Amino acid sequence: MLYLKHSPASTIKQLKQSFNLTFIFRKATKHVVINNHSSGLNPVVKHRMKKLIIDVDAGVDDAIAIMMALSTPDVEVLGITCCYGNTSVENVLRNVLRVLKVCDRLDIPVYRGCSKPLVDHENHADNFFGSDGFGDVPDPHAPSLDLVQQKKAKQAIVDLVNANDKEVILISTAPLMNLAAAVQLDPSLPKKLKALYIMGGTIEARGNITICGEFNFVCDPEAAYIVLDCYTCPTYIATWEFTCWNCLPWSFCDTWLSVHTEKSDFVEKILRISRQVRCEQKHQEFNPCDAYAMAAAINDAVIPKSEEVAVTVELQGIYTRGMMVLDRDEKLKKEHKVFIMKNVDLEKFKEMLINAV
Amino acid sequence: MLYLKHSPASTIKQLKQSFNLTFIFRKATKHVVINNHSSGLNPVVKHRMKKLIIDVDAGVDDAIAIMMALSTPDVEVLGITCCYGNTSVENVLRNVLRVLKVCDRLDIPVYRGCSKPLVDHENHADNFFGSDGFGDVPDPHAPSLDLVQQKKAKQAIVDLVNANDKEVILISTAPLMNLAAAVQLDPSLPKKLKALYIMGGTIEARGNITICGEFNFVCDPEAAYIVLDCYTCPTYIATWEFTCWNCLPWSFCDTWLSVHTEKSDFVEKILRISRQVRCEQKHQEFNPCDAYAMAAAINDAVIPKSEEVAVTVELQGIYTRGMMVLDRDEKLKKEHKVFIMKNVDLEKFKEMLINAV
Amino acid sequence: MLYLKHSPASTIKQLKQSFNLTFIFRKATKHVVINNHSSGLNPVVKHRMKKLIIDVDAGVDDAIAIMMALSTPDVEVLGITCCYGNTSVENVLRNVLRVLKVCDRLDIPVYRGCSKPLVDHENHADNFFGSDGFGDVPDPHAPSLDLVQQKKAKQAIVDLVNANDKEVILISTAPLMNLAAAVQLDPSLPKKLKALYIMGGTIEARGNITICGEFNFVCDPEAAYIVLDCYTCPTYIATWEFTCWNCLPWSFCDTWLSVHTEKSDFVEKILRISRQVRCEQKHQEFNPCDAYAMAAAINDAVIPKSEEVAVTVELQGIYTRGMMVLDRDEKLKKEHKVFIMKNVDLEKFKEMLINAV
Amino acid sequence: MLYLKHSPASTIKQLKQSFNLTFIFRKATKHVVINNHSSGLNPVVKHRMKKLIIDVDAGVDDAIAIMMALSTPDVEVLGITCCYGNTSVENVLRNVLRVLKVCDRLDIPVYRGCSKPLVDHENHADNFFGSDGFGDVPDPHAPSLDLVQQKKAKQAIVDLVNANDKEVILISTAPLMNLAAAVQLDPSLPKKLKALYIMGGTIEARGNITICGEFNFVCDPEAAYIVLDCYTCPTYIATWEFTCWNCLPWSFCDTWLSVHTEKSDFVEKILRISRQVRCEQKHQEFNPCDAYAMAAAINDAVIPKSEEVAVTVELQGIYTRGMMVLDRDEKLKKEHKVFIMKNVDLEKFKEMLINAV
Repeated sequence: MLYLKHSPASTIKQLKQSFNLTFIFRKATKHVVINNHSSGLNPVVKHRMKKLIIDVDAGVDDAIAIMMALSTPDVEVLGITCCYGNTSVENVLRNVLRVLKVCDRLDIPVYRGCSKPLVDHENHADNFFGSDGFGDVPDPHAPSLDLVQQKKAKQAIVDLVNANDKEVILISTAPLMNLAAAVQLDPSLPKKLKALYIMGGTIEARGNITICGEFNFVCDPEAAYIVLDCYTCPTYIATWEFTCWNCLPWSFCDTWLSVHTEKSDFVEKILRISRQVRCEQKHQEFNPCDAYAMAAAINDAVIPKSEEVAVTVELQGIYTRGMMVLDRDEKLKKEHKVFIMKNVDLEKFKEMLINAV
Repeated sequence: MLYLKHSPASTIKQLKQSFNLTFIFRKATKHVVINNHSSGLNPVVKHRMKKLIIDVDAGVDDAIAIMMALSTPDVEVLGITCCYGNTSVENVLRNVLRVLKVCDRLDIPVYRGCSKPLVDHENHADNFFGSDGFGDVPDPHAPSLDLVQQKKAKQAIVDLVNANDKEVILISTAPLMNLAAAVQLDPSLPKKLKALYIMGGTIEARGNITICGEFNFVCDPEAAYIVLDCYTCPTYIATWEFTCWNCLPWSFCDTWLSVHTEKSDFVEKILRISRQVRCEQKHQEFNPCDAYAMAAAINDAVIPKSEEVAVTVELQGIYTRGMMVLDRDEKLKKEHKVFIMKNVDLEKFKEMLINAV
Repeated sequence: MLYLKHSPASTIKQLKQSFNLTFIFRKATKHVVINNHSSGLNPVVKHRMKKLIIDVDAGVDDAIAIMMALSTPDVEVLGITCCYGNTSVENVLRNVLRVLKVCDRLDIPVYRGCSKPLVDHENHADNFFGSDGFGDVPDPHAPSLDLVQQKKAKQAIVDLVNANDKEVILISTAPLMNLAAAVQLDPSLPKKLKALYIMGGTIEARGNITICGEFNFVCDPEAAYIVLDCYTCPTYIATWEFTCWNCLPWSFCDTWLSVHTEKSDFVEKILRISRQVRCEQKHQEFNPCDAYAMAAAINDAVIPKSEEVAVTVELQGIYTRGMMVLDRDEKLKKEHKVFIMKNVDLEKFKEMLINAV
Repeated sequence: MLYLKHSPASTIKQLKQSFNLTFIFRKATKHVVINNHSSGLNPVVKHRMKKLIIDVDAGVDDAIAIMMALSTPDVEVLGITCCYGNTSVENVLRNVLRVLKVCDRLDIPVYRGCSKPLVDHENHADNFFGSDGFGDVPDPHAPSLDLVQQKKAKQAIVDLVNANDKEVILISTAPLMNLAAAVQLDPSLPKKLKALYIMGGTIEARGNITICGEFNFVCDPEAAYIVLDCYTCPTYIATWEFTCWNCLPWSFCDTWLSVHTEKSDFVEKILRISRQVRCEQKHQEFNPCDAYAMAAAINDAVIPKSEEVAVTVELQGIYTRGMMVLDRDEKLKKEHKVFIMKNVDLEKFKEMLINAV
């Protein structure tokens, strides 16, 4: 039942070599990127880049995920779509623009998506990351919402995917309402995607926002149901428990953010409230949930082990509404299966975090 | 969150010594038991015995659990209560009498309990152990149902517990309808129990009879809810996943049942169908589920590790009705917590199985 | 689909005559009843009496229903069973004893029943009739709870019905937990009943305590489900809407209670709070709900029209948990059908109320 | 709570006069309409016309509703949107084109909408109107699906409403998936509508497709929930029970279709199967459900009595999923209320049916 990616010793060696090469390459291209925002890369290089659409409800961990993507040389971010989740969609848009500003990448188009769940009207926002979703450290010079695109998120997803058939990797680190809306707009969308990466759901019914349910799924269970039902492209899920199993000690954070770049200071600032709360709750570890999904999307090798299984979402239930359901015995006769991430190569992951700031 | 029973080295040594003593003692008393059925033991010894009420829906694994109890010298079985589950309550009564006959213990009172769930009318019986729950190898000389007590199961539980205040260990390896009925008859029942052991429920939402639900709980979710809600005595649960993690290879079975005693031959016979089915399904292992709960009830040391947590049962849900819910973050504010078994001392467990036949 | 009780003119004439006779008889026997509590009646008369068990959660309207029964000469009340509902079971017991004291009938045995729902723990008590369920006008000389029988309600129901095979009419004007418990104690109970009368449920999904649910059913939906499923005796249901359609103007109350007997003054006193609340809510009418079920139980002719239909109870649902479900198109293939009351002979009903005080 | 439209005698007289005038006017304009399809009307007249978008899952009663709209002189049908329901969306498109052909109105744009429910995948299609939804009397000369617009239904609804701000009456006689999709596309849509008319839902929990649920709502409960939640324009609902209360005798059908026009013959033909089935089931009456909603949309005076109440849809429940919930006691604190139709002026309605063919 467990799916272990084939990696004979020789391949691994090659991988390591290519990794080093990539690493050097990245350092070299970084300068170019800063100045030219990928446009200066020659066509061949561009063609080989990973094209990402990032769907967020930023949120500090969404921010880290975005920064991780922007710091990776072979990644091109086609657009960022925003929806309600950790905070209102307005806050999410503002937060994303702040991240892009810090990264000097305001050229990336940002799209407004859903401001409420598909069906449900319960408000699950818990201000975990502060009332603005970003640690309540407002920036008086934050970019204006005028920078937000006119086109709506779901239309943008459809258009970007259609313009880049079979090339786009879609990553959602948010409630799945924008993705549900997009597939309703264009039912053929999934088959044009290269892959879908999701942070959300539970693998063992250990929830965070409810007893059995994870925040992103519980926020819009119908959207999660639709996405897991309709997106038949290769799908990779970083569940809540998976991220918990792979938390980092707060001491890593201290080191990580001690470089005092503009980016690391920004992360340190927006992270402060939630870190404090977590420490008061005796959580000894730092869980940048969304970043695991992003790391996996950027670099397969970060996730050496996955489980392939059909999944769905419980839509009813007192304790279980929004819980991801893993159909290991194939009782649902569902053809499409997803990859549930099991293991992280923590060294690779930490390196990606380090590069992100 | 994990609860590790204190067992400093010295204690363990003592335990081992006492275990050996017990073992010798058992061998010695065995003959006595056969002839006198515990009545010949002197009062001091009797007082120190573990008093058990066993609630079953036998079922082959229930049978093994009963045989395990009967083979343990410091255990006195006060009665066996039967209910619908693996098969009809009539079959269960007949099966239990057959077990008692093979063990030459027809002196133990057997009680008829519920023939259907408290509320639900769905039939979940899946004939896993054959249509009679006992491998479809009927015994023409099976004891008559006339041997079944007139008193009903729930009344028997109440009376036996009241007659043995704080001494009775109740073990249920069946849907929990008899226990739910008993606590409705006498709400003060739980506080007069020494402990409750249950085989049932899931710990990670990996079900057997449904995607997320285990057979005993799904068979009567309301009963399971009531029992987990009202039985505030020390409660120990052997979940489905826990038994799966601690399965034995079929090769163990071969050795185990090669002794060719009357009892081992009986087990071999009633186990045949389900073993065949399991092997066809490529299940390489033998899971005598109910026996884990029984082993734990008889000997604490079999379960070195448990998790203490408040639990309840999902009563609604499309995929999750009957699923056990673990409230690790205390969102339910439930005072009573149960012990979810985590680890088995497999050597001890195997020895108990060996002694059982 | 509508069931009109056969009443050819000649029969009606006979009925009227018998009614007049009864009426005279009642007046005549009243004195006897007061002094002898039915024990003085000769065996022939006693044999023809209607034997009632009344299950209540009194509640002012339960009180009126009890008084109605006690004022009817051909009715013998075998016992009154109490359960949680309008107020705690302790209050209900106390309230029933107060009613019996006012009626000088403390000889009637009163039994303690369930203090909480079968499964659910939601508290629906809404203090509609005051915090003690009886208008918050405590009586310093109220009878002591020592008068309550030792035997529990469910056992009493079983024993009384078994002692009066096919003669007992069971009336429940409360959440159905005692009846559910009784049938679990003795599954053959329903076939030994003459009839069952229930105040509860909805016919058109117009609830009172919830949007779609009526108080007695919502208080313990599982109990209601069990009762409608297992009580296959002739069953008559006075639903919430039915009682609303047949409300009486408050002006009737003024006249009704102006007789200033001990009983009418008692009713006036305990009714005061809820009347005030109702009037403030612009409810122009007096709805003695439970009394409709009682009137029907005592005198068929009060309900000239019923609908015969299979029913069950919705156990799930956000808005509909506890709602009675009428299966008019026989989709459930349920053999047993109940009679849903449709029409009241209001003149007869009013006369019964008048006689009650 | 009941809403009675003001209609003093004098007004009624005026209405009748205007009605006669209209009638004459209609006869006069009919010829024009046939030849010019409304385009020949002078601007003043056109401005006063009722602009309709009709959303259907045709279905014979949808067909009658469309024909009713097309036969009304002051009505302009801006477009017809189709979705899955009585039959597949392909069949619905074909059926609508057949209706338009018979009415010589193939100029009206027809749009393809949803082919499956928003969330649910249960198939409720029951072939009540035959396997093609149109009596299984295929027309070899049926118009080609090439006539269907490229634009999708939801986009068409949004565009047509935006182009006719505050003028469009939207009528849905289908599962509400197209309307739910449209409001997700443009959340401001409802406030730009003049009114919304719906055939669907229950008022008293008397369902048709399920015990408590009506076909259109049960087919897509989430869509119904979204529409009742988001469409805050004046909303009028013809429930299932309402249409049942106002059925017509089959004898009316005989007379109605005896005119033997092309249109009446068409209706007679596609109605044959379902009439036969209904008669076998002893249903003595003809229920052109969707036509009631259409009649109300075209002519207020057809519905003299409505109830104004907040409504929602039960999304969970075993028996009640998809049931419309009427919040008469305002427990939901929902500001927007809808008009539940109560009475029909059957004479007016019959006249509209007669004119339709």
